[in-house]
This record gives sequence, C-alpha cells and structure tokens, in this order.
Amino acid sequence: MTAGTHLILGGARSGKSRHAQSLAEAFDGALLYIATGEAFDAEMAERIARHRADRGPRWTTHEIPLALPAAIAASSSARRLVLVECLTLWTSNLMHADRDIDTDISSLVDALDRAAGPVILVSNEVGLGIVPDNALARRFRDAAGRMNQAVAAAAQRVSFVAAGLPLRLK
Amino acid sequence: MTAGTHLILGGARSGKSRHAQSLAEAFDGALLYIATGEAFDAEMAERIARHRADRGPRWTTHEIPLALPAAIAASSSARRLVLVECLTLWTSNLMHADRDIDTDISSLVDALDRAAGPVILVSNEVGLGIVPDNALARRFRDAAGRMNQAVAAAAQRVSFVAAGLPLRLK
Amino acid sequence: MTAGTHLILGGARSGKSRHAQSLAEAFDGALLYIATGEAFDAEMAERIARHRADRGPRWTTHEIPLALPAAIAASSSARRLVLVECLTLWTSNLMHADRDIDTDISSLVDALDRAAGPVILVSNEVGLGIVPDNALARRFRDAAGRMNQAVAAAAQRVSFVAAGLPLRLK
Repeated sequence: MTAGTHLILGGARSGKSRHAQSLAEAFDGALLYIATGEAFDAEMAERIARHRADRGPRWTTHEIPLALPAAIAASSSARRLVLVECLTLWTSNLMHADRDIDTDISSLVDALDRAAGPVILVSNEVGLGIVPDNALARRFRDAAGRMNQAVAAAAQRVSFVAAGLPLRLK
Repeated sequence: MTAGTHLILGGARSGKSRHAQSLAEAFDGALLYIATGEAFDAEMAERIARHRADRGPRWTTHEIPLALPAAIAASSSARRLVLVECLTLWTSNLMHADRDIDTDISSLVDALDRAAGPVILVSNEVGLGIVPDNALARRFRDAAGRMNQAVAAAAQRVSFVAAGLPLRLK
Repeated sequence: MTAGTHLILGGARSGKSRHAQSLAEAFDGALLYIATGEAFDAEMAERIARHRADRGPRWTTHEIPLALPAAIAASSSARRLVLVECLTLWTSNLMHADRDIDTDISSLVDALDRAAGPVILVSNEVGLGIVPDNALARRFRDAAGRMNQAVAAAAQRVSFVAAGLPLRLK
C-alpha cells in the first residue's frame, strides 16, 4: 500500500467495507477510521456498533458527520492510513444540514490532493435502480453521483465491488 | 464446462438467465433446472411458463422453493449439470418462511463444496439503487447481499451480466 | 472514431453523458445530438437546457421523442456522428404512447445495422435495485432491459460507466 487515494464503490451489502478494511490492514502504520454515519435510530446504532467491533483493536475511530475535509487534512500522515466510510452518508448529512454540496466536494478533493498519506474512501453506487418517485431522493441520487465522479477523478485508484469481488475501474 | 460452481449475477432483464442457460447447454450430459420461484400471481405464472418453454426438451425442471441445499446434494453428479434460478427468490422464500437465513446460506455453501458435478447459480444484484423506504425491503437487500457474497466466495467462477454481456469477476 | 455503433450504459449521474460527448467530439465531422427527452416539467426543462449549453456550438440538436429509427436512417452519414440520448427515455416515451416496444426495438436495430456513419447511444441501467412496488415500473424495467440487450447485441462496442470511468463490456 503506497500513499494515494483509493475510492471503493459498491452497492449495499456488496462487501465493499470488508474489502476496504482488508486493504487498509495491509498498511504498516496507524489506522484511522473516519465514520460519517450517525446513529439516528436503533437499526443504525446496531450496525455501527457491530462494524466497530469487527474492526478490532488496531483501529482508532472518529465520528465526523460534516467536517470531513478538515478531518482528513488534520489526520493524514505518511505513517497513518485514513479510511473514510462512507461518502454517501456524508452526502446525505450535507443535504440535511443544507450545505452547498459542490463546495464541500471541492474541499474534499483539495484535502485528498494534499493528503500526506494513504486515504481509502468507501462510497455507495445508488443510481442503478428505477428513478425514485420523490424529488428529494432524486436530488440525493444526483449529489451522490457528482460526489463519486469528483472523487474518482481525483483518486489514483478506483474499484467497484460486487459480491465481495473487486473490479478495477482505474 | 468442467465441474465446479459458477455464480452469475445481474440485474433484472440483464440477460443473466439466457447467459446461464447457454453456458449450461454446452455441457455434454443431463441438464437439471432447479426453479426456486413459485407462481404466487398471474404475472409470475406467466413468466415461469414462458421460461420453461424457452428452455426446450433437453431440460428437466424441479421446483424447489426452500430445500435447495438438499436438492443439490441429491441431484448433482458428474454426468448432470444443475442450474439454479435464482438465489434471490430463494432468499425471499426463506424470509417468508421465517428461516434463519445465515444457516441456510451455510448449508448451501456446504452443498456446493460437495457437489459431484457442475452447478450454475443465477442471482440478482439488488443493492445498487436508492435505500428502500421500508425496513423489510432493507432486510431483504441485506440478506440477498450476504447470500451473493457467500456463494461468490465459494464459487470457482463469478460473472456479472449487463445488457446480455458477461464480465468476469472471478 | 470509426463508423459503428457504440452503446454507453450507466446509472443516473454516472458520467455516461459526458463520456459519450467526449468520445463524440473526437470525431472529425458534423455532430448531431438526438434528444429523446421532452420537457414535461421544470426539473426536466432545466436539465435539458443545461445539457444543451454544456455541449457547445459544434453540435446540432434534434428532439425526437418517438421516431428514433427514422431519424437515424435520415441523418446518419460517414461525415456525421449521431449521439442518441437516451434509450431509456425513448423506452418510456414508447410506453406512454402505447406502442409495441419490441417492434420499435427491431426497427432501431435495423436502423443501426444500416447506419452509414458512427452512432453513439446512451442508456440507463435501471435493473440493479430492489423490485419496484408497482406493476408499471416493473414493466418499464423489463422493457428497458430488453432494449439494452438488443442494442448491445447489435453494437460493435459496449461500455459501462461508473463514477465517470468506462469499463469495456464488448
């Protein structure tokens, strides 16, 4: 694992988290997990706790619902790998907070360009189903797609995971 | 076609069934089609009947909504190819029957590991759209994803079919 | 860019339009954009106007909601590249107009087989989410999938775009 940005795309329950984690654990240094998700309900709290237990003691975890670019800038170093999970939840958090998403996307890309060490980002692909009925879901889908495109353009490596198996896109 | 397990993933109307069938028909031996779907309504009954007619006379068909691992164990042989369609409907049947899905996934993987002849399994990828509104659909999506990951890990070969064209994942 | 048909598949906001456009602009000749979309509401009108402005002055645009095969037959030439966007909206238009979709698919394939110059077609993959609740959405998903399969079979080249990155399927 050399320095650089690696985007890992996949669907729900595609095995993308496990793939990201196993890539990260090959890194010889500190491991920082940045969780963008917040536990709004029991379903989510249960999932977050299970994931944290799965990661084990090598990992430090920070919960960063909004200020992701600053968190990457502050924590990235040649001796620390940062794993961000996930960009889709971050997009959703930004929308709920009524932020200008394209500005935040630019800040993230800047932070990735200047990162001193390796960064792995996990993101959902959500645009391959039927057009959603409600306008908010369509706006979210658009924002999530712009996010993925911008980070993919900035990344050194992009993978698509299906059924636990990675496919190299870049 | 040598012995071994081949998982064929794809979306709705992706051509995955036709691809699976044409791979199967290259096998020089008996052909068994295990249909996990049951005809609950007219739409489904019409689709099942059309698929059965499409397959033609080389095929024997068994309808197995639940006991899939036992059916594979009982019918697999070096002189008979088994085509299972599809794992996603099987997952749905298991949920409706209130079974413990992870136990059934383990039984299926065991049956595949011990199969005496080639097995082709067709499954839907359902996790690449917007998060479903209702909790049952989310639980189903999770279960279908775990099923695909487990079978992909056990399989010798995994393909993803889009617009009738296969992409090799493993 | 030589003559021939190139199908570009992808999800919503996958970057498929931009990819198609940049491939097209490498062509040394006239550029015709056939838009199948009609502006039924403000959201759609805004998107169409933005896309047209993005394309710039090299392009001529025709809006063809239904008679796509005839439009390709009439306009394709060795000195003109035709970009069709998109087949999924065309499928939707055909359903609303109560046309026999398989007949229109055949006419399109015939027009592509006889095209005198290069044709690039953009289409959505919509079958990778949870089964839609309503029967009309399921019928649409089936029709869109049959369209993609038929055009992919006729095309010289098929790409799948995710996060702006193309993956070659054919």
